[in-house]
Amino acid sequence: MIRVTAFRWVPPFARGLVRDLRVRWALEEAGLPYETRLIGFEDRGTPEHRARQPFGQVPVYEEQAGNEPPSVLFESGAIVLHIAECSGTLLPRDPAARTRAIQWMFAALNSMEPHVQTFALIVGFWKDEEWAKLRRPFAQQMAEKRLDELAARLGEREWLENEFTAGDLLMVSVLRILRETDLVDLRPALAAYVARAEARPAFQRALADQLAPFAENPPPAAS
Amino acid sequence: MIRVTAFRWVPPFARGLVRDLRVRWALEEAGLPYETRLIGFEDRGTPEHRARQPFGQVPVYEEQAGNEPPSVLFESGAIVLHIAECSGTLLPRDPAARTRAIQWMFAALNSMEPHVQTFALIVGFWKDEEWAKLRRPFAQQMAEKRLDELAARLGEREWLENEFTAGDLLMVSVLRILRETDLVDLRPALAAYVARAEARPAFQRALADQLAPFAENPPPAAS
Repeated sequence: MIRVTAFRWVPPFARGLVRDLRVRWALEEAGLPYETRLIGFEDRGTPEHRARQPFGQVPVYEEQAGNEPPSVLFESGAIVLHIAECSGTLLPRDPAARTRAIQWMFAALNSMEPHVQTFALIVGFWKDEEWAKLRRPFAQQMAEKRLDELAARLGEREWLENEFTAGDLLMVSVLRILRETDLVDLRPALAAYVARAEARPAFQRALADQLAPFAENPPPAAS
Repeated sequence: MIRVTAFRWVPPFARGLVRDLRVRWALEEAGLPYETRLIGFEDRGTPEHRARQPFGQVPVYEEQAGNEPPSVLFESGAIVLHIAECSGTLLPRDPAARTRAIQWMFAALNSMEPHVQTFALIVGFWKDEEWAKLRRPFAQQMAEKRLDELAARLGEREWLENEFTAGDLLMVSVLRILRETDLVDLRPALAAYVARAEARPAFQRALADQLAPFAENPPPAAS
């Protein structure tokens, strides 16, 4: 039994970006069924949630066999890697190619995402703040530099390695953070790369399943 | 044969923090000898370096057997994981404990480092910029939140899991970015955790080997 913790409601700007999507997508690619534990923002600080996720984030991944206590894992990158290793999908069998796929997982989360996230927050969430207006040009320059470097490496290839891997899954998840900007669209190779990944049935199922509860649940009462 | 690419000179604020240290440290823990390929800042954009490292960063890790072409890997997190997997050190043998150690690797690089790095740059490199002065309180609050959450999970333990793992290696590497601030020192459990890791002979050798070329080489000519 696999259980993924996700939010029962998030505001529109976060829908389709909350990180449980990365785990749902990997599970769909692997053909592994799962159930969800839906929580509210107000649950992020509870002792029960903190015991599973020390930073109060989602997702949490729980795996349980029979009456054993569940094994609990957090950090979406680590969970995607765990799913890939357990299922034999999303990582090439050849050891060198497998290592390179894992390299792209780390590249997505440590070399791309900090710059992408910073820019997306500056033009979105923080756009009316004075510091954000001052910082926007540099943040854009850094994000564009990384995108150009990624596009140069991707070239005409379909995926970063010879097949779709967990590295592509995380890289595309990071690029999607820029959806309210034109930075990806201005680079046709990257736009096509994201579109190819988003067209995968596993992604479509994962996205629909993340979004479904948001339509059914009310926002939390103002606190 | 293992070869690690590093800078031959960096300014004082970066010494002991450049990311080849993470790889050198892992290699020392694993008892694996390596040679270095020292490059200058001016080499970051060369086609030779970009072919090995698409983002123009260091380190690059090359592994070569006999006359085979070298296998090339970038992204320090991925390299540390590769060294751990190949050497049988830095990751527990028990599968669940191994997965948790990898979870801490991703937590260090994706949940901690972006906030730690942002704050360290705001109080260091960018401190005289207007946007940085405006943003400093929030950046400090985010970094402190993550540090408190990490300290709460670490508790009285020596390491994040039952033994020193690649997760501790990366987590301590991230905490060291705050060395010019008092944020770690204000949390005695974290300060002691960093000190325990820095006292390891493997870390001391890795640090000395990163620093040695900086004393021998001149800064690059102004460009």
